[in-house]
Amino acid sequence: MRQGRKSRRGGDTPPKRTVNYRDLRNPFPPMAAFSEDHITAMHNAALSVLETHGVKILLPEARMLFKAAGAIIDESTDMVTIGREIVQAALDTAPKSIPVAGGAPHRDLTLELGMLVFQPGAGAPHATDLIKGRRPATNQDFRDLTCLTQHFDVLHMVPPLVEPQDIPMHLRHYATMEAQLTLSDKVPFIFSRGTPQVEQSFEMLRDFRGLSDASFAAQPHCYTIINTNSPRQIDIPMAQGLIDFAKAGQMSIVTPFTLMGAMAPITVAGAITLSHAEALAAITLTQLVAPGAPVCYGTFTSNVDMKSGAPVFGTPEHFRASLAAGQLARLIGLPWRSASGSAANLGDVQAANETQFGTWGCLMAGATVIIHAAGWLEGGLTVGYEKLITDIEVLQMIAELCVAGEEGGSDLGLDAIADVQPGGHFFGTPHTMARYQTEFYEPLVADYANFGTWAERGSVDATTRATGLWQNILATPPDVPVNDARRGALQDYIAKATATGGAAPVS
Amino acid sequence: MRQGRKSRRGGDTPPKRTVNYRDLRNPFPPMAAFSEDHITAMHNAALSVLETHGVKILLPEARMLFKAAGAIIDESTDMVTIGREIVQAALDTAPKSIPVAGGAPHRDLTLELGMLVFQPGAGAPHATDLIKGRRPATNQDFRDLTCLTQHFDVLHMVPPLVEPQDIPMHLRHYATMEAQLTLSDKVPFIFSRGTPQVEQSFEMLRDFRGLSDASFAAQPHCYTIINTNSPRQIDIPMAQGLIDFAKAGQMSIVTPFTLMGAMAPITVAGAITLSHAEALAAITLTQLVAPGAPVCYGTFTSNVDMKSGAPVFGTPEHFRASLAAGQLARLIGLPWRSASGSAANLGDVQAANETQFGTWGCLMAGATVIIHAAGWLEGGLTVGYEKLITDIEVLQMIAELCVAGEEGGSDLGLDAIADVQPGGHFFGTPHTMARYQTEFYEPLVADYANFGTWAERGSVDATTRATGLWQNILATPPDVPVNDARRGALQDYIAKATATGGAAPVS
Repeated sequence: MRQGRKSRRGGDTPPKRTVNYRDLRNPFPPMAAFSEDHITAMHNAALSVLETHGVKILLPEARMLFKAAGAIIDESTDMVTIGREIVQAALDTAPKSIPVAGGAPHRDLTLELGMLVFQPGAGAPHATDLIKGRRPATNQDFRDLTCLTQHFDVLHMVPPLVEPQDIPMHLRHYATMEAQLTLSDKVPFIFSRGTPQVEQSFEMLRDFRGLSDASFAAQPHCYTIINTNSPRQIDIPMAQGLIDFAKAGQMSIVTPFTLMGAMAPITVAGAITLSHAEALAAITLTQLVAPGAPVCYGTFTSNVDMKSGAPVFGTPEHFRASLAAGQLARLIGLPWRSASGSAANLGDVQAANETQFGTWGCLMAGATVIIHAAGWLEGGLTVGYEKLITDIEVLQMIAELCVAGEEGGSDLGLDAIADVQPGGHFFGTPHTMARYQTEFYEPLVADYANFGTWAERGSVDATTRATGLWQNILATPPDVPVNDARRGALQDYIAKATATGGAAPVS
Repeated sequence: MRQGRKSRRGGDTPPKRTVNYRDLRNPFPPMAAFSEDHITAMHNAALSVLETHGVKILLPEARMLFKAAGAIIDESTDMVTIGREIVQAALDTAPKSIPVAGGAPHRDLTLELGMLVFQPGAGAPHATDLIKGRRPATNQDFRDLTCLTQHFDVLHMVPPLVEPQDIPMHLRHYATMEAQLTLSDKVPFIFSRGTPQVEQSFEMLRDFRGLSDASFAAQPHCYTIINTNSPRQIDIPMAQGLIDFAKAGQMSIVTPFTLMGAMAPITVAGAITLSHAEALAAITLTQLVAPGAPVCYGTFTSNVDMKSGAPVFGTPEHFRASLAAGQLARLIGLPWRSASGSAANLGDVQAANETQFGTWGCLMAGATVIIHAAGWLEGGLTVGYEKLITDIEVLQMIAELCVAGEEGGSDLGLDAIADVQPGGHFFGTPHTMARYQTEFYEPLVADYANFGTWAERGSVDATTRATGLWQNILATPPDVPVNDARRGALQDYIAKATATGGAAPVS
C-alpha cells in the first residue's frame, strides 16, 4: 500500500545501495610467520648475501651505477657485490607512500602500507571461457579482459592480463597501450622489454592523457613489473626497465618469482630471504638512478610440487611466504605487492579454493597490492573469463569488510528487539523496513534461490552463470570518456610507428 | 644411485610426511567488528533485554529454576525476566576450559578460547553426491558420513551430519548412537529431543565405552546443541536438554540461530545482541541446574536475502557477525562455537567460496569450534559428499598454518643460497634433498599436473575427483577398534528398546 503510493508519486524510487570499493584500507590484523628476531635475521642475511655473494647484473649501465655507488664489480662474471650501506641509503630515499595518477581523479591511488589494491591475473599466454574454450590469447582477449577489469571498481589497476599472441612482439605494446588507454581509465601497465618500447609507451600515455612533460614526471601515471631472474640475477630488459622507469619518475614493482625448491631454497624462510635480497638489489638500482624514485617492494613466493616440479599456488607454504614477506615489508616500510593464484587447470572448486586461500594469505600479510586475485589459472598460463567473475565476487565481499568500518551494522535495534514478541519475526519492523534495501551486500554471481526454484530455472552452476555476466558486460561499451581527437592521434601514432617497423624487444 | 642403494638395503624407505591435525590452536590474530566500547554496550543491552523484556521459556521445570534464583516469572505468558546479577553469577561458575573425552585418548579435546576444533556440516534432511544425486538422507548416509568424518583428523567431533529419514523419530537415536559409537572414536553428539531419548543415549554411550557412572559424570563424553527459538524463546525439548546435560555433567553448546532481518534485527549488532541475550539465558539455566556444568557459548548469525527471505551464508554480514560474536565470547571468557556455511544448491564455485569465506570469518573471530566447515549446502538442507572432501582440503591447509608454528620452514638455507649460482636451481641441493619429501603439504584432492597431463588423464575437475576419494575411504572399514562384546551388548540394548516401543521425542 505504502509502496503503491510511492510509485504513484513517481519520483520516490527505492533507495539504491551504493558502496565505494575504490579506496580500500586493509582492515585485517597482520599475522606473523616468524618472530620479529627471525625476520631481522632474514633481513640481515639478505644484506649479507648481497655483500658476500652478490647478484649477476647483465646490463653494463646498471653495473656502472652500482660501481659509482661503491659496489664491487667483477666484469668477467657480471657479478655485483653490494655493501649494506648502499642498500640502506636506497631504503632511506625510497618513498614510503606513492601517489599514482589514473586517467580520472577517482582512479588515483595511494600505494603505502595499510592501503589495499587488487589486480586480476596477469601475464597469461592463454585465455579460456566456456564459449570458446582454451586458446592462445589474442588481442581481442586483451581488450575484453581490460574491459572487464575496467567494469569492476574492486579491481584498481590494469595489469597485462594476457599476452596477445596474434600481435608480434615488436608491435604488441601499441596494441596493449591502445586497449588500456581507450577502454579503461585505471592505472595502466607497461612491459619492460627495452628502452624503445618503454619510451614509446610513455609517449602514448602522456599524449593520450594530455600531460605535460612536467606533470608526467611529477608522479607515476603507470607502472612496470620487474621479475628478477632468480636466483641472484637481473637480466638486461629488467635492469633497463628499472633505470627507465626511475628516470621518468614512473613506478617499478619489484617482484622476484622465487619458487621454493626450484629457483629458491625449499624452506619458506630461505626462499623469502633470497627474494628479499634480490628485491633489495633492484630497489637499490632505482634509487641510484634517481633518489626518491617510486618503487614498490614485491614478492611472489610459492612452492613446487616436488613430485613433478610444477609450481603450485594457494598452498599453506604460499600463505606463510606471504606472511613472512609482509613482515619484511613492514621492516623496510615500503608499499608492497603480493600475489594470489591457483594451479588448477579449470575454474573448478580447486581453483576457487586456492585463489581465495592465497588471497587471505596476502590480506593477513598486509599486502598493499594483491595481483592474480581474480581469473588466474594453471599457475599463470591461462586467464579464465568465468573465474575472473567468480573471484571478483570474493574480492567484493572482502571489500565490504573494508568499507563496513565500525559503523556498518552497528545499530543495536533495541526498539525492534523490544517490539517483536517471542515467536515473531523482524521482516516488517520499521527498523528492518528502513534498511532492507541497503543493509546487505548484493551478490554478483551467487544464486540465493532455494533448491526447487534453482532447479526449475535449469540447475545452473556459478561458473555457467558467470558466462552470462561477462557477456552482458562486454555487450556494452566501457564507461570511459574518450576524447576523439586524442584517440585519433594515438591511432595515427601507432600507424606511423608500425609503418616504420615498430620497436623490437630487447633481450 | 643413492636411492638404489637404499632400496637394496630394504628397510630404508623414504621419510613419510607426518603431521598432527588433532590438537590445533588458532594462530590467527583476532579481528574486531566493533570497538570494545560498542561490544560492552551490546553485552549490557543483552542483559537489559533479559532484565526488562525477558525470555519465554516453555518448560515449567526451567521456569521454576529461574524463579528459585530470583527471576520474575509471569505464568500466564511463560515469560521469565532475569536480573543481571543472576546472569553474572552463572558466568562466574561456567567453566572457561572444558576437557571433553573421546573414545580414545588421542580424541580427547580441550574446549577453551584459543583452541580450534572443526566439525563438518550438520543437521541436513538431504544428502547428495555425484553417484546417487540429491535424496532424503538415510541411515546409510548417516553411517557413511560418520565414517568420512572419522577418517579425517582435521574433523574433531562428530555432529549429526544428516537426519536419517528412513528411521522413525522414536528410534532414530538408537541408529545414530550405534553409528557414532561403532564407526568413530571421536566425541559424539546427542540430540535434545526429550529426557527419554537423552537418558537412553547416555546409557548406550556409558556402557559402550565402559565408563562407570562416576567417570561418566566426571567430564563430558558427548555434547548436544541447543538452538533457542529466536526471538526470545526456549522451547520444551531445548530447555529439557539444557537441564539433562547439566545434571549429567555433559556439554551443551548453546547456539541461537538469529538470521538478520528474519528472527533478529537486520543489523549485525542488533542480531548479535539478541543472540547474546538468548545465549546468556540458556547458559544461566545450565548453571542454575549445576554450577560449573560444562556449557559452550555459541552463535550462528547470518543474513537473509531480502528479495526472497532465504537465509544466506558466507556473506560479508555473516563474517562480521562472527567477528562481533567472538568479541563477546572473549568478553565473557567462554569457549564458543561459530559456524560457516553456504547457500549454494550444489558443490560449485559459489559453494566453495562461501564456505571458505565463512570459515575465515570464524577463524579471525577466534572461534573454538567451527561447525558446518565442510560439506554443508543449501543453507543446511543438504550435506554433499564431494563438497565434504573439497572443503576438508581447505581445513587441512588451515591446519597446516596452525601446526607450522614458528619453526616450520624457518631454516634460511644460506649454504644453498651461496652454492646455487645465478641461473641455477635448487632441485638437487643437499638442503632440498633433505626436505623435499616432508617440507610441503600433500594435497588431498587438488591436482597439480600441468594442463597437458591433466587433459590426457581426462580433464577431471576437483569435484569429480572427490567422488573417487570418498568411495575409496568408504571401501575400507573405519580404523576404530571395537570390542565385540560391547557391540553385541549395544545391539541387544537397541533391539530390546525397539521392541518395547522406543522413545518418542518430546515437543
